[in-house]
Amino acid sequence: MSHDISNGANVRKPLPEKRSRREFLQTASLLPAALYLDGCASSGGQKENVNNRGDTAGSMIDYAHEPLDKVRIGIIGMGRRGLPMMRLLLAIDGVEVVAISDPFAPALDNARKLLTEHGAAMPAFYGDGDYAYRELLARDDIDAVYIATPWRWHAPMAVETMDSGKHALVEVPAALTIDECWQLVDASERTQRQCMMMENVCYGREELMALNMVREGVLGELLHGEAAYIHELRWQMKDMDEGTGSWRTGWHARRDANLYPTHGLGPIAQYMNINRGDRFDYLSSMSSPALGRQLYAQREFPADHQRNQETYICGDMNTSLIKTARGRTIMVQHDTTTPRPYTRHNLIQGTNGVYGQYPDRFALESLGDFHAWQHDMSTLQERYDHDLWKRTEEAANELGGHGGMDFVMLWRTIFCLRNGLPLDQNVYDAAAWSVVIPLSEASNADRGNSMDFPDFTRGAWQDAAPFNIRDAVSNA
Amino acid sequence: MSHDISNGANVRKPLPEKRSRREFLQTASLLPAALYLDGCASSGGQKENVNNRGDTAGSMIDYAHEPLDKVRIGIIGMGRRGLPMMRLLLAIDGVEVVAISDPFAPALDNARKLLTEHGAAMPAFYGDGDYAYRELLARDDIDAVYIATPWRWHAPMAVETMDSGKHALVEVPAALTIDECWQLVDASERTQRQCMMMENVCYGREELMALNMVREGVLGELLHGEAAYIHELRWQMKDMDEGTGSWRTGWHARRDANLYPTHGLGPIAQYMNINRGDRFDYLSSMSSPALGRQLYAQREFPADHQRNQETYICGDMNTSLIKTARGRTIMVQHDTTTPRPYTRHNLIQGTNGVYGQYPDRFALESLGDFHAWQHDMSTLQERYDHDLWKRTEEAANELGGHGGMDFVMLWRTIFCLRNGLPLDQNVYDAAAWSVVIPLSEASNADRGNSMDFPDFTRGAWQDAAPFNIRDAVSNA
Repeated sequence: MSHDISNGANVRKPLPEKRSRREFLQTASLLPAALYLDGCASSGGQKENVNNRGDTAGSMIDYAHEPLDKVRIGIIGMGRRGLPMMRLLLAIDGVEVVAISDPFAPALDNARKLLTEHGAAMPAFYGDGDYAYRELLARDDIDAVYIATPWRWHAPMAVETMDSGKHALVEVPAALTIDECWQLVDASERTQRQCMMMENVCYGREELMALNMVREGVLGELLHGEAAYIHELRWQMKDMDEGTGSWRTGWHARRDANLYPTHGLGPIAQYMNINRGDRFDYLSSMSSPALGRQLYAQREFPADHQRNQETYICGDMNTSLIKTARGRTIMVQHDTTTPRPYTRHNLIQGTNGVYGQYPDRFALESLGDFHAWQHDMSTLQERYDHDLWKRTEEAANELGGHGGMDFVMLWRTIFCLRNGLPLDQNVYDAAAWSVVIPLSEASNADRGNSMDFPDFTRGAWQDAAPFNIRDAVSNA
Repeated sequence: MSHDISNGANVRKPLPEKRSRREFLQTASLLPAALYLDGCASSGGQKENVNNRGDTAGSMIDYAHEPLDKVRIGIIGMGRRGLPMMRLLLAIDGVEVVAISDPFAPALDNARKLLTEHGAAMPAFYGDGDYAYRELLARDDIDAVYIATPWRWHAPMAVETMDSGKHALVEVPAALTIDECWQLVDASERTQRQCMMMENVCYGREELMALNMVREGVLGELLHGEAAYIHELRWQMKDMDEGTGSWRTGWHARRDANLYPTHGLGPIAQYMNINRGDRFDYLSSMSSPALGRQLYAQREFPADHQRNQETYICGDMNTSLIKTARGRTIMVQHDTTTPRPYTRHNLIQGTNGVYGQYPDRFALESLGDFHAWQHDMSTLQERYDHDLWKRTEEAANELGGHGGMDFVMLWRTIFCLRNGLPLDQNVYDAAAWSVVIPLSEASNADRGNSMDFPDFTRGAWQDAAPFNIRDAVSNA
């Protein structure tokens, strides 16, 4: 049954049922032209203006929309992320995939095939060029749009999504520049629509368990966290015309930054109540030399190959330090180039002990000897597995998706939307976690001098309630 | 047989055979009075002058003294470090312990007992007050002085040692302020005497093996290193009148810094040829809140106990980032407070892979699959164990001392002195590794803005040969 979200307490701008390409371009003109012309937004190592720039129309910090009986979803991007996410969404009660968009015809074919296999109702398809997604946005029967496109499209599409009266569920990172971060915040406040960055790692079993441990005081007062995206992805350079590497590789030739911080940082930020009693204050960053991609290209491609024409400037290993307003520290690393095992670190340290991953380990003073790491997770899991995980474990294990975290995230997000709860990640989180990219770039280019985080919450972080994933089981 | 070092190529200042206390105080007046009055030198979070300040009398970068038939040693400090080091020195051919000094009578008693057990010749003893060591320095039959005293005495004693014409073998850290670092450099160049900081960790089996691997190109071009001194030492707070904690605890109430960086950093610096083709360029640093020592004091001591009267300001976890002139990065952590297992990290990463410790692990592209850590060290050891380790392994294992590294360090240092070789760690290393303390303090106090390293080598790093431990076996 269709549910008209315009009946909700929060009025949205009315939109014509269909608009011409010309009208879409007019909407786009509200955004800086460079976003669409350049292909890659970059702060170029310059310190951008970090001041609070907009008027506050009403903080989104604890915002919850009216409950939705059914969540009508549009999906933009049917590639390596969008397609598997649609598969999971089809498995969740109360979800209707209404429309999908992708300019790459085989991607839509893949979607048709998957939908047919699942016996699902066929949504509307929009595939006529890069801006076909605007036809999806012009519909009035969509509540939320999942955006799974290349990075440079995330922020502009999320802004347009909110301006069309829909919630934006946007892949990581949500934004690439400080300006884009503010655009998201301004749009969310202006439209009173959610902008949730879909940071799936926050829904991993271990991350949820660690959140539980932190909230139950097992680690004592928090002191320090460590996050990373260390994931060798040189092989993606072989994606030339399609696939992640076809667009991701270019960033390594354009920006020397901590390019992909949110997977590691999101959970640490939640443990530390960032934007909810604490906030990121400043950041220093240093990159190692950029050598690995050049060496890989020389080894894997002919001398005249496009991959051998690029100059890769993104330091193979970036290490950034964040200080929070309450004085805590976070180390965030990025390395998708060096041959070494995967890790997100996920280390959280307090006055009573430490929990970390890769490998799973912990040391707690309360357990007696803390001089050797403990590796048996079963005791912790038995005691601290999160209710949300226990509730969704069976389906998560069955359906897969990064060890279940994708399913748990989607299930939980749909649950919140259907129950009128605030989403776990608001627009301020999207901005604060993503802005590490331009801030690290600027600090690294300025001899590691620190860069201030904008206070995207405009002060609201000080009085916000601590973060938790509440009501995960009740009212289902 | 006595060996007169004044016959060497490098002329030293003649010293009277014995001098009065008054004369010693005159010598001391060359040093800043505050060193002796304050008890604790501190840069107070201020940016100190980092410019090259002295005239260059002749770089010590590749300095080697005339070979010594026998190395006549004086030892200042017979506490928890000096005594075991004397035991090891007694086991090395060509060493004569000529004199020892400590103002704490039971320490000298322990020394007498040990010497008697070993049937060793009884050295001269100097124990009359804090400045008794000057009587030791006044002797003309000593080649080198081992300084194993509380931190604040290291630099002043090393300077006086060199000014008395003797080589200074000084415990870590060699200095506590930028000014002290320069005093060491100036004194070493002025007197043409060695100032070796006795960084024992550089002589660990794994560190020597990693050095070998790096020099043989196993890791490819170096990119990044990680170092730490994470060692829970709250229990030392129970040392009240003697023992390390009796003076070390005070630093946690006086400086918010990376207090003890050299154990982790020394080996990484050697892998990276710091001061020999590369150098530390700048540093950013952030400390977590300082909570653990206060909590420990509340738990372990009565409310009116001295440990509950102090305000501990040194952040429980300090994380510092260093950038080198060649663009490499190093992360250095310090935490002696949080309940967690020991680690020095000792992680070194290059374009071909990574080696690290705690636990021992490596991943190398040349071995095929690098997506999982390898933990079997035997293959690496068979192939890359250092000649120095193989030469000294048996005695090191028998005599002990931090897993053998203490013995290897002493054996190697004596070997170099007897063979007229440069010591492995010169005064520039002592200064560059130790200056992390004041630089991290200043950066941490300045919102993580970066602090420039002084170029203690005055430019000589650029043309210096790469670091290696050469000739360890030949000419013994």
